[in-house]
Amino acid sequence: MPDTISTTISPEGSLEVLSQHEVNRLRDTSASGLHDLLRRCSLAVLNCGNPTDDSRKVMETHRDFDIEVLQQDRGIRLKLSNAPAEAFVDGKMIRGIRELLSAVLRDVVYVYNEIQTQQRFDLSTGEGTTNAIFHILRKAGALKPSRDPSMVVCWGGHSISREEYEYTKDVGYHLGLRDMDICTGCGPGAMKGPMKGANVAHAKQRRNLSRYLGISEPGIIAAESPNPIVNELVIMPDIEKRLEAFVRVSHGIVVFPGGVGTAEEILYLLGILLHPSNQDMPFPVIFTGPADSADYFKRIDEFLTYTLGDAARSRYRILIDDPVGVARSMRAGINEVTDFRRAHQDAFYYNWRLNVDRDFQAPFTPTHEAMAGLALHRDQPVHELAANLRRAFSGIVAGNVKESGIRAIEANGPFRLHAESTLMAQLDELLSSFVAQGRMKLPGSTYVPCYTLQ
Amino acid sequence: MPDTISTTISPEGSLEVLSQHEVNRLRDTSASGLHDLLRRCSLAVLNCGNPTDDSRKVMETHRDFDIEVLQQDRGIRLKLSNAPAEAFVDGKMIRGIRELLSAVLRDVVYVYNEIQTQQRFDLSTGEGTTNAIFHILRKAGALKPSRDPSMVVCWGGHSISREEYEYTKDVGYHLGLRDMDICTGCGPGAMKGPMKGANVAHAKQRRNLSRYLGISEPGIIAAESPNPIVNELVIMPDIEKRLEAFVRVSHGIVVFPGGVGTAEEILYLLGILLHPSNQDMPFPVIFTGPADSADYFKRIDEFLTYTLGDAARSRYRILIDDPVGVARSMRAGINEVTDFRRAHQDAFYYNWRLNVDRDFQAPFTPTHEAMAGLALHRDQPVHELAANLRRAFSGIVAGNVKESGIRAIEANGPFRLHAESTLMAQLDELLSSFVAQGRMKLPGSTYVPCYTLQ
Amino acid sequence: MPDTISTTISPEGSLEVLSQHEVNRLRDTSASGLHDLLRRCSLAVLNCGNPTDDSRKVMETHRDFDIEVLQQDRGIRLKLSNAPAEAFVDGKMIRGIRELLSAVLRDVVYVYNEIQTQQRFDLSTGEGTTNAIFHILRKAGALKPSRDPSMVVCWGGHSISREEYEYTKDVGYHLGLRDMDICTGCGPGAMKGPMKGANVAHAKQRRNLSRYLGISEPGIIAAESPNPIVNELVIMPDIEKRLEAFVRVSHGIVVFPGGVGTAEEILYLLGILLHPSNQDMPFPVIFTGPADSADYFKRIDEFLTYTLGDAARSRYRILIDDPVGVARSMRAGINEVTDFRRAHQDAFYYNWRLNVDRDFQAPFTPTHEAMAGLALHRDQPVHELAANLRRAFSGIVAGNVKESGIRAIEANGPFRLHAESTLMAQLDELLSSFVAQGRMKLPGSTYVPCYTLQ
Amino acid sequence: MPDTISTTISPEGSLEVLSQHEVNRLRDTSASGLHDLLRRCSLAVLNCGNPTDDSRKVMETHRDFDIEVLQQDRGIRLKLSNAPAEAFVDGKMIRGIRELLSAVLRDVVYVYNEIQTQQRFDLSTGEGTTNAIFHILRKAGALKPSRDPSMVVCWGGHSISREEYEYTKDVGYHLGLRDMDICTGCGPGAMKGPMKGANVAHAKQRRNLSRYLGISEPGIIAAESPNPIVNELVIMPDIEKRLEAFVRVSHGIVVFPGGVGTAEEILYLLGILLHPSNQDMPFPVIFTGPADSADYFKRIDEFLTYTLGDAARSRYRILIDDPVGVARSMRAGINEVTDFRRAHQDAFYYNWRLNVDRDFQAPFTPTHEAMAGLALHRDQPVHELAANLRRAFSGIVAGNVKESGIRAIEANGPFRLHAESTLMAQLDELLSSFVAQGRMKLPGSTYVPCYTLQ
Repeated sequence: MPDTISTTISPEGSLEVLSQHEVNRLRDTSASGLHDLLRRCSLAVLNCGNPTDDSRKVMETHRDFDIEVLQQDRGIRLKLSNAPAEAFVDGKMIRGIRELLSAVLRDVVYVYNEIQTQQRFDLSTGEGTTNAIFHILRKAGALKPSRDPSMVVCWGGHSISREEYEYTKDVGYHLGLRDMDICTGCGPGAMKGPMKGANVAHAKQRRNLSRYLGISEPGIIAAESPNPIVNELVIMPDIEKRLEAFVRVSHGIVVFPGGVGTAEEILYLLGILLHPSNQDMPFPVIFTGPADSADYFKRIDEFLTYTLGDAARSRYRILIDDPVGVARSMRAGINEVTDFRRAHQDAFYYNWRLNVDRDFQAPFTPTHEAMAGLALHRDQPVHELAANLRRAFSGIVAGNVKESGIRAIEANGPFRLHAESTLMAQLDELLSSFVAQGRMKLPGSTYVPCYTLQ
Repeated sequence: MPDTISTTISPEGSLEVLSQHEVNRLRDTSASGLHDLLRRCSLAVLNCGNPTDDSRKVMETHRDFDIEVLQQDRGIRLKLSNAPAEAFVDGKMIRGIRELLSAVLRDVVYVYNEIQTQQRFDLSTGEGTTNAIFHILRKAGALKPSRDPSMVVCWGGHSISREEYEYTKDVGYHLGLRDMDICTGCGPGAMKGPMKGANVAHAKQRRNLSRYLGISEPGIIAAESPNPIVNELVIMPDIEKRLEAFVRVSHGIVVFPGGVGTAEEILYLLGILLHPSNQDMPFPVIFTGPADSADYFKRIDEFLTYTLGDAARSRYRILIDDPVGVARSMRAGINEVTDFRRAHQDAFYYNWRLNVDRDFQAPFTPTHEAMAGLALHRDQPVHELAANLRRAFSGIVAGNVKESGIRAIEANGPFRLHAESTLMAQLDELLSSFVAQGRMKLPGSTYVPCYTLQ
Repeated sequence: MPDTISTTISPEGSLEVLSQHEVNRLRDTSASGLHDLLRRCSLAVLNCGNPTDDSRKVMETHRDFDIEVLQQDRGIRLKLSNAPAEAFVDGKMIRGIRELLSAVLRDVVYVYNEIQTQQRFDLSTGEGTTNAIFHILRKAGALKPSRDPSMVVCWGGHSISREEYEYTKDVGYHLGLRDMDICTGCGPGAMKGPMKGANVAHAKQRRNLSRYLGISEPGIIAAESPNPIVNELVIMPDIEKRLEAFVRVSHGIVVFPGGVGTAEEILYLLGILLHPSNQDMPFPVIFTGPADSADYFKRIDEFLTYTLGDAARSRYRILIDDPVGVARSMRAGINEVTDFRRAHQDAFYYNWRLNVDRDFQAPFTPTHEAMAGLALHRDQPVHELAANLRRAFSGIVAGNVKESGIRAIEANGPFRLHAESTLMAQLDELLSSFVAQGRMKLPGSTYVPCYTLQ
Repeated sequence: MPDTISTTISPEGSLEVLSQHEVNRLRDTSASGLHDLLRRCSLAVLNCGNPTDDSRKVMETHRDFDIEVLQQDRGIRLKLSNAPAEAFVDGKMIRGIRELLSAVLRDVVYVYNEIQTQQRFDLSTGEGTTNAIFHILRKAGALKPSRDPSMVVCWGGHSISREEYEYTKDVGYHLGLRDMDICTGCGPGAMKGPMKGANVAHAKQRRNLSRYLGISEPGIIAAESPNPIVNELVIMPDIEKRLEAFVRVSHGIVVFPGGVGTAEEILYLLGILLHPSNQDMPFPVIFTGPADSADYFKRIDEFLTYTLGDAARSRYRILIDDPVGVARSMRAGINEVTDFRRAHQDAFYYNWRLNVDRDFQAPFTPTHEAMAGLALHRDQPVHELAANLRRAFSGIVAGNVKESGIRAIEANGPFRLHAESTLMAQLDELLSSFVAQGRMKLPGSTYVPCYTLQ
């Protein structure tokens, strides 16, 4: 039995001034269909002291947890039952967690309501989707007009070696020394290290108001709880919008070693950057890791060259064992981005100009059928192959750590992926290396693949 | 020929982070039907150094003035042609005026768009109307959750004697010394004096972040340009919503001597406070003026007693020649309001609980027919008579100072009001006294009544 | 009998963290010789709502007033007996006045103690004196390293016509619109107007943290109580240090019409600026007034040319009836000062480089003997004549409004000044014009000259 | 050869507004006798990325390092030659280090000048000494009047095991969660851990303006460089004043396992708290460590009971392996301190009331003679024995890590301590256990004792 606390709290910040109608709607929607979603995301945030990547287990451990929105004339209150005790100090919820919990409520209930029920945006179009993402981020206060470009998105595995983790901290430290902020997917491993490093550097540089932005989505948040450094949390409705949010708020991207999730992100990013309409836009992308991880990126580099062609190489740099070099290179790249945005009178806080193809926007649900039907061959335009590979990796992530995916695999066995033979070999090698290096799951369990290649 | 400047400026504050779609819509709507409205309100704000209450004259003097919304990827710019030179210092617009201009743009174009075009609120119901007012005020940032109740609405004439003006400053000064903020209709006279006085007191008390809130509406703003102290401006869509905004954001109301506009406000306020569902709610209302104005309030008091009955008297106090007494009494009243709100868990920043009858919400357009058709007799419920008297006074204000009203009177002669004989006598006496005391128009012109009583 | 209050209050700001030894010393010195000085200055500050320029009368009206410093382990408290009631609101002292009172205590007791008792500075030398002034200003927080040059000292009469007063407000308004701060001697008239005008302009420009610096001295403060806008008060030990503080903190000086006090200031300023070592230093000086005051400055101009020669004219501009022109010219002058300081790596906040001759530093006590002995003829270096004329005017100010001076005149009759005949004629004409124009005393009493020219 | 940089920088903060005289004095004193002191302390701060506790080695590695104060009219500049490159990022000094360097300059040159040259305080008396300490802390801005009591001083070894280090972080974390600040001697080990832990907790609680106060002295700073979390640094003139500063600014003290330095601190603290005049003053003291360190405190406890008697036990609590318990107990203790100070109107920021006997104030210089002459027997009042034991431990610290001590031992062999036999046995056992547990020096060298017991 976990140690728990039941109590009632007030939310923070953006939910302070609500109309009576909004309070009603909040309570009603949280009581209906969205209740389960709200409950799961809230639990993830409250559970943030507890390292695990098994969403299902989190839910089972805290099956008695519940959250309810209460209406009061002056605003709302949240009633929590059997919440994890680590979120409290002497009976009082830690303020940072209270803020994250308010962010969950804001995004899951309020924003979803606007976007899904009221259908203010036409999500079947690129423009409508990009607009919806803009509104969610603005609602969250994540678009800050007065800041110079400084947002570095860091991607990489949640299950990485101690050495790799220390390396991500080192890179974050040197980014932080050079006045850059960090955005990640807000879990452990490579999503936590850069924030920790940057936080120390920011303290040394006496840089107040630094940003540690976490962007998550309901399916992954339980497996990747916000780490304690995150001071802004946004929950996007699905994977594809989360990925688009990453590329539109970032001014540069650093990729650390990781598993299939990281591979998914790389394919997504390059698929977009290779689009002709984006080719003149500066967008610094750096792959980096400690000396022992050199081989990892060599393999990735080969896979990308094989699948996306030589052009892909021009959009990223590989820097091994060189945190200072990464930070300097990123600083220089962001300065170029700044000049470009200024010259085009583009906003600093949201990259409207970046073209994101419909293929990369439409949500992909990794059922066994959908996975089996993916066209994995080189007889199609490069960006379509990138999109399909992205989907394949996305499905494997689900099978590994998401509650729905784990249940589907339990019921129907592993996903079956069909690819042409050379690509199959390349893919097999890549995935096998992830397994061998322990990048598929947090240590402590033997990895049973959730896929077969045929 | 007025001294003018043509230039392009950036807006301030709430319009900083806009989606491309919003920028488009802003430009389009400002180019279409709303363009004239935007132009008129902007001119009023830019003209704020220039004391006049003749809307039509302002428009004619500056007939070459124009404003255009330009789209840029990073946001919007405002292109001004032939703007009054007083709004600038060495070619640069005064920052406070730039903020007020942004408020105009926000309210006239953006908010109206949401409310009128998209019809997010059902304005045919009380709930929908009150909700719409809440949203306009929230959008304007006028609902501040962390402040203790301190907002005193001050009503009174725009054309008052020097002695009365000094008195309003004095009252404002003593309110300010006691930690109260001021909200008015944002023109000259009794709308400016309390703000000026409070501003000096706030400086003496080293009170930062003091609020000088002006609430206007498109028909009156040209005649009552925001005075230089106003640091928050909200433009409500019409008179009735402006009046409701006053009573919902205020924690107490001070009424100074004034003309028909002030009489309109008093009837509105008492009509609401006399509603049975509001009878237990504390709401401090004080009528006050210098010694020489004692007779004015005696007459008002008699008129109210005659029309609304003795009960009305219990909802206001008359304090003559006693600025310190007014301030102390208001402070005590607001403390009671604070206790009441706390006890009922009501919000401090918006008085949801106050019942505003539909009769006081539905917009009244003072055509000659509508004015002639008003039922002005005591053979109806008190609150209905209050509502009809309010409408009558409202029409006379329009005939005196609003562009549309002035034109209608020019075309069709004075409004004809029909009242039962005793009421007629009372009304005649009241209105004649306003004329005799020069309260109908700013000095410098002979007043020609825009009404006849029959 | 004046309305008074007796109470105990805590000081503000710079006196918060004191050692036990300092608290002891404060109490002891305030109980001993300095007690009367502290009492008089405190009364002046508490009396600031009450317009009078007769120091003696202030003291007599409030002869029951007293102030005592109480020791507490956590700091000090001030016990006030029979303090003017206007300094309080419902029994609580107005915060701004509490701050000014703390400034009095800081300067009169604490700083004087350091400078006079401990003799940390050698006041018989120029360097020691300038250093002492620096320390008093730094202790008061009046030297702000991060601000760009913007401090305009405004001089002029405390007893001026309504028209002149409105003009000083207008100039202050246009200075304020252009981002300048105001420093004056902190009394009424030309010392209050520019602050009031600038205050409105700063509000319009949304300029926070504006400075309204008042520099006084114990002999004059009762006659020139800090006006309510003053938000920084410094009390220098004597007239000469007050004058030096003015010229070292200012980046430019505006002179309005005034009486002998203003003449004293002009002679002081030009005597210094004409020193060869200051000749290349930019220092904008503007004489200005409304159209009707043109004659005043014509006369001053002639007197200066006669006494100091044509060179004097190159150090000031006369601009009549042109507030905008004054503000623009001062802005341009201060920009030059900024460039000069930057080029010489001089501090912005204190003009170390300005040479102030010993003749202008040594305190002058205007006894009948000293006044009679002044060498008022042109047979001496220009700067010595300037210094002697300055002393003569200084003595007349004392005889007009300072308690000590008034008593001396009562006892011994008017001061006798001896001057060579042409200079005598010039001087007579100048002084007579001050009398005729009512510039010697606040209205309400007939002026009886405190001097004779022989 | 270490990687170095030569450059010129501006100081930060408290040195911004200096008189010309002060700048001169700064330059002169830094050029004369104090130059070496300034150079050594500056190097310690610049070297803070480099873990070592051998002061002599630091000095030898950087023998080419130099620092010079340059005079400019606008202030001062610091010219650095061959400074450790780690203090810079791309050629620009890290801001936090620049602040610490300014603190060094302030304390070493400026404050010392006031205290030593000008002799403003009579250091031969208790009152004068306590007053001098107050002034140094106030000059450093370390006395903050508006904060509630929250300062926890943490003592413990600089050379501790990984397990103990993690434990100190844990305790710091739980103190931080409960709104407490941390003060330590600002080196590694137990002086760094609590700050790191508290820093994470403060971030989680969104607590801005948290304090990480380091108090050092010139002899120890090179061996205990400020860790990167320290955001306030004060350098006291000698060990005894540093110890007094600790006890007067703290509201409670936590002691972690350590070596002789920690023993010195414990003896100092208990020697003072056992003084009759301090017996009613609440002062929470907690000894704590992980489970494996239980024995350590058992031994300390026995030694204290033997030397100081049973009464000593009532002034501290021993809590093993219980970070949450420590934090709760400290919070409760500090609440008691708050009540006590309030009841006595004592300052929160400086404990004036604590009696510190002259024996604990007079500086002790550990020459071979002085060490040999210490009276180490129980035939003297308890507090005198405590004072002598404190001196003995202090000498051993010097012999271990201070440059002067190391050189003295090299020249003359180990210190000889004479004690009565039982005490000798107790002392031997204690010191031997420190050696055995590796608490005497950072790992990497065999410890050769700098003392013999006879």
